[in-house]
Amino acid sequence: MTSTPFAPRGSMTEIEGGASFMPKFDADGLIPVVTQDATSNEVLMFAWMNAEALARTIETGEAWYWSRSRGSFWRKGDTSGQTQTVRNIRVDCDQDVLVLKVSVGGDGGACHVGYRSCFFRSVPMGASDKALTLQIDATKLSDHKHK
Amino acid sequence: MTSTPFAPRGSMTEIEGGASFMPKFDADGLIPVVTQDATSNEVLMFAWMNAEALARTIETGEAWYWSRSRGSFWRKGDTSGQTQTVRNIRVDCDQDVLVLKVSVGGDGGACHVGYRSCFFRSVPMGASDKALTLQIDATKLSDHKHK
Repeated sequence: MTSTPFAPRGSMTEIEGGASFMPKFDADGLIPVVTQDATSNEVLMFAWMNAEALARTIETGEAWYWSRSRGSFWRKGDTSGQTQTVRNIRVDCDQDVLVLKVSVGGDGGACHVGYRSCFFRSVPMGASDKALTLQIDATKLSDHKHK
Repeated sequence: MTSTPFAPRGSMTEIEGGASFMPKFDADGLIPVVTQDATSNEVLMFAWMNAEALARTIETGEAWYWSRSRGSFWRKGDTSGQTQTVRNIRVDCDQDVLVLKVSVGGDGGACHVGYRSCFFRSVPMGASDKALTLQIDATKLSDHKHK
């Protein structure tokens, strides 16, 4: 287990009911992060942080993630301008998931496909089969330039 | 790869821009799920579904999850009464994460610790060290009976 800047995991009582931040990083050293718009509470994206990305986020107030595909740190907005100023970080009962509330810079988007949120498509309810058609229920950002 | 009721994964263009639902299940056959309150957009919980749990959720309109710790299906609310009627399911650009918007039954909670949301504690910003003190910024449900 890699050393982190955070407290080691305690008992279940300490984790669930205590006041000490004891985030759990998985076997790959990562914790899942849900990012919401601080005003609308819309879920913008889902990503991962390692301990260093989380420490940078707490210290700088800007959202840093860990890119599993690139194997590198990723300050959100570095290439897209879609920076995320962090207003609040919450941790769940098990302390193994984080929720960030952010204010988005740039064009206000978070998704590389060109929408405000990565969750721009709905799944139809009622029956599940191999031909479920998604519905796009958002509009692309007008000035979207990056792929 | 286990067969699922859903379409097999296509090209990146199909996954990101297409209308076909092609959910990605990880090496354990699971997809992460973020569950929000349909009215307030508050994030209530984070859990996992396998293909069968997702199919049941789509077909019944009630949230089913896969419990990694118990290794079994889990119809939310079966023991707590905190059922989740699903109003909307969204999938992200990569089609490897789901967001559910739900109306909660029972006492209106989602967390076994007794709060409406599992994310009842905030992490202080500014500096990261081993003594970060969490702040509880929610009230326990008054009629909370289960541990």
